[in-house]
Amino acid sequence: MPIRPDWIAVDWGTSNLRVWAMGPEAILAEAASDEGMGGLQSSEFEAALLRLISPWLGDRPVPVIACGMVGSRQGWHEAPYRTVPCAPVDASGLVSVPTRDPRIQVRIAPGLKQISPADVMRGEETQIAGALALTPNFDGVLCLPGTHSKWAHVSAGEVVSFQTFMTGEMFALMSEQSVLRHGMQGGGWDDAAFDQGVAEALSRPERLGAKLFSLRAEGLIAELDATAARSRLSGLLIGVELAASKPYWLGQSVALIGAEKLSRAYARALAAQGVTARILPGSECTLAGLASLARQTEKTV
Amino acid sequence: MPIRPDWIAVDWGTSNLRVWAMGPEAILAEAASDEGMGGLQSSEFEAALLRLISPWLGDRPVPVIACGMVGSRQGWHEAPYRTVPCAPVDASGLVSVPTRDPRIQVRIAPGLKQISPADVMRGEETQIAGALALTPNFDGVLCLPGTHSKWAHVSAGEVVSFQTFMTGEMFALMSEQSVLRHGMQGGGWDDAAFDQGVAEALSRPERLGAKLFSLRAEGLIAELDATAARSRLSGLLIGVELAASKPYWLGQSVALIGAEKLSRAYARALAAQGVTARILPGSECTLAGLASLARQTEKTV
Repeated sequence: MPIRPDWIAVDWGTSNLRVWAMGPEAILAEAASDEGMGGLQSSEFEAALLRLISPWLGDRPVPVIACGMVGSRQGWHEAPYRTVPCAPVDASGLVSVPTRDPRIQVRIAPGLKQISPADVMRGEETQIAGALALTPNFDGVLCLPGTHSKWAHVSAGEVVSFQTFMTGEMFALMSEQSVLRHGMQGGGWDDAAFDQGVAEALSRPERLGAKLFSLRAEGLIAELDATAARSRLSGLLIGVELAASKPYWLGQSVALIGAEKLSRAYARALAAQGVTARILPGSECTLAGLASLARQTEKTV
Repeated sequence: MPIRPDWIAVDWGTSNLRVWAMGPEAILAEAASDEGMGGLQSSEFEAALLRLISPWLGDRPVPVIACGMVGSRQGWHEAPYRTVPCAPVDASGLVSVPTRDPRIQVRIAPGLKQISPADVMRGEETQIAGALALTPNFDGVLCLPGTHSKWAHVSAGEVVSFQTFMTGEMFALMSEQSVLRHGMQGGGWDDAAFDQGVAEALSRPERLGAKLFSLRAEGLIAELDATAARSRLSGLLIGVELAASKPYWLGQSVALIGAEKLSRAYARALAAQGVTARILPGSECTLAGLASLARQTEKTV
């Protein structure tokens, strides 16, 4: 029997595309590809989407709701930022995208911007909406670790303020492209070295620049091993992020949204500061956020 | 008339090779190539050197003195680090390199290491020796800005301690490879934006991670231009370095050794903190340091 979803959920980031065929009460099917927004011209998005979802399309037009970098100026169709403070998502902000294929009705969720200090997000707003749907009445702080970590104050269903850190991108550049890469091969993990990095960075964050090169020097003259070096680098960078985001998490209720391994590293670092964070899976939050947009859409149409 | 030097000075870094034909009182000739240590196997160094210096070779064997990454484990021949506190260079630490060509007698200057906190340098020790030769009786602090900036305490002709910062490499990675590259095209310079970055980083160094992404966000929503963004990035990274190196420069006599444009940016940042630095040209210091090794060699041979 063919799959005929009520609507299709789409998470379309820089590097990946994920789609879900949504029934009235359950996920009917899902698919993914590496045709992220970063590798596509605007004329190529519709075909990339159809390659994944065409088995799910019948006679009747199906609503498609997408979030992420697909809505950026370099994406399929620009969805202008909404300005905080505001609810993380709002169906009235969805931007319709003209398609050649009449079987789909595509709408893209806009990101959020903050005027001062200047900041932007795209995709995370949908995860925040999902976290609020999964955790009703949540008031407090959400942290979304990743390439560009986000910290957001959430109160009464609105994003009040947020702050972005380049922690994940810095880790990738430092561990894979800088001189430090020579002493960081392999994928092991060393909790003690991570903890040391977090503690050093939190107590003396201004010494980050010096602490980074010491990973190389200790590899050369003090036999620091690659697993410890890599874990301490992660700890140093997350520790510097925590030093700067302290006004967000100190004495607050914190929930982490993201990939499990990375969220657990953040939770471990926060625990050492006396904060017990709850972990919410990133893709569940994305899907719940898109679903809350779909529900709002039904009401407004 | 053919050039017949008394000895040949060689500065052999990761990316470049520079050579000078040295007479008794003057430079007779110089040459350079992009055959840096980073692109050569150990068997290829002798030929790369001869490609530049063979016009200067006659019947008599000529001493060649080299400094830089050529002496690292991945270079031509390892010259083991000397340990601080010690004089920046010492002819007794030169390592002889066997060559097939009998017309050259090659020796490599070792770098310096510091046991705790672990740190290393290769090439800068020769520039420090040169700075001391050019500025007799210098006591104070030397700063060598670059890919890996070095700060060194020098007293009574010895390097007492030093500290490396990855500032230049971070600037290159951030401005050319990270998400920030989108708003950093062109090569302009904006003093006010640089000053703002330095001031922000010195007053709140722990906020670096957040300040970096704000360059991107202000480009997207507040029309920050590329020249200002690039200059402020430079200011932020140099400011964080100055925050951590404060014990070196506060209330001290500081001399900068390096490329002119970069040294002037550091001098400007230090001047805003009330420190007047003197600037010494990097390649003159390298040559003066190699010359002081050559003089020591004559005495000991």
